[in-house]
Amino acid sequence: MASYRLDIAYDGTRFRGWSRQQGLRTVQGEIEAALEKLFSAPVRLTVAGRTDAGVHAIGQVASFESPPGRSPPETLLRALNALTPEDVAITAAGEAAAGFDARRDAVARRYAYRLWVDQVQSPFERRYSVHWPYPLDRGALERCAGMLPGTHDFTAFTPTETEHVRFERTVVEAGWEQEAERILRFEIEADAFMRSMVRALVGTMLEVGSGRRSTEDFERLLGGRPRAEGGETAPAHGLFLVAVRY
Amino acid sequence: MASYRLDIAYDGTRFRGWSRQQGLRTVQGEIEAALEKLFSAPVRLTVAGRTDAGVHAIGQVASFESPPGRSPPETLLRALNALTPEDVAITAAGEAAAGFDARRDAVARRYAYRLWVDQVQSPFERRYSVHWPYPLDRGALERCAGMLPGTHDFTAFTPTETEHVRFERTVVEAGWEQEAERILRFEIEADAFMRSMVRALVGTMLEVGSGRRSTEDFERLLGGRPRAEGGETAPAHGLFLVAVRY
Repeated sequence: MASYRLDIAYDGTRFRGWSRQQGLRTVQGEIEAALEKLFSAPVRLTVAGRTDAGVHAIGQVASFESPPGRSPPETLLRALNALTPEDVAITAAGEAAAGFDARRDAVARRYAYRLWVDQVQSPFERRYSVHWPYPLDRGALERCAGMLPGTHDFTAFTPTETEHVRFERTVVEAGWEQEAERILRFEIEADAFMRSMVRALVGTMLEVGSGRRSTEDFERLLGGRPRAEGGETAPAHGLFLVAVRY
Repeated sequence: MASYRLDIAYDGTRFRGWSRQQGLRTVQGEIEAALEKLFSAPVRLTVAGRTDAGVHAIGQVASFESPPGRSPPETLLRALNALTPEDVAITAAGEAAAGFDARRDAVARRYAYRLWVDQVQSPFERRYSVHWPYPLDRGALERCAGMLPGTHDFTAFTPTETEHVRFERTVVEAGWEQEAERILRFEIEADAFMRSMVRALVGTMLEVGSGRRSTEDFERLLGGRPRAEGGETAPAHGLFLVAVRY
């Protein structure tokens, strides 16, 4: 057996998320089907970040164990891209160090959240950003982001019904930047994320940025408060898994 | 009667082009339907650039004559965007100088053509650029673009079956630039364009850039040669009408 690594980008619009689910169109389901054709054997992927329905990825990473390839990485890459639908791209493929595990070996994940800030929605950005036609206090957003680095209890930012057992996560970097004239972008890197954590953080920061919540309240939430005290979960289609670090 | 100007962006993917056609989904058809609801009277749009099926626009301009609005421009803009589908955006709307005609008054149009230059297609750029996984001689492309400014006979770059009567056009500016790491962008501004002229120019330049045609041959074509001597027409989905100047 050999360990393989795949680097993956996908437009999440038409997927019911990463994880395989019987009868639903998922990224894992599509790629596993392609791999099974190539290796003529069942293949199970392990992924760095299980993204929800509608969430996009630029730098997703997955691993699997399979018989050593007789074909060079170049051929594996071409074959996989030929067998997967056009809203998924395998950007790199090849054998990895023995025992490589995309989830367990990851030391950090980086996400981006994009807002289209203009009175009028963009026909081109509508699938890849959330339309924000309201006033927004950039300073307040940046003060919130500035509180994120470090280790916090993020209970307020993940659903109450949860499979997580530990609610502390360590944020390495977080900030808002102007990606383009009318695109505001939040980026955050942490050791790991809980379910819908980035979207709940963004939704809550947007409440601060629009004056419906104070920065002090946001700070208090980082001390480990019930989900009900946190803000709304921002829509999935603004979120991108940007990179995974090993 | 008053003259109105609309600034329009659209994702051309699901449209059969700008021009109204019975029973087909076109940009003109959608916007005229919205205007007729608003003004409770038939409205006919005049457009700066009649784009073909699949071509996008960021800065399209259209005009129409109608009874003076009782509503401020802000309200007209909101109402129009509420009544048009999500792949069209009216980015500005309001009364213009008396007799304003979006086609006749335009002094220049600017188009962009985008290539995604990488071995692997991008799930995000696939609708808005043409995938180019082959080698490309940037210097040759730039030499071709450098020949375009000035007045030329573009007969080699528009279909033989044509409604045009004059084949000279004056190019103000043309060039290739690196828009992003893997996006190569051609921009061209001219007084006016003939049908599929930008796409035929790009298709022919790509033949030069991939070594299938010489720069000398490209230069010769600008002297007014039959269409059959020009190169292929590049696909519609890489093309954007970027701006119209008045």
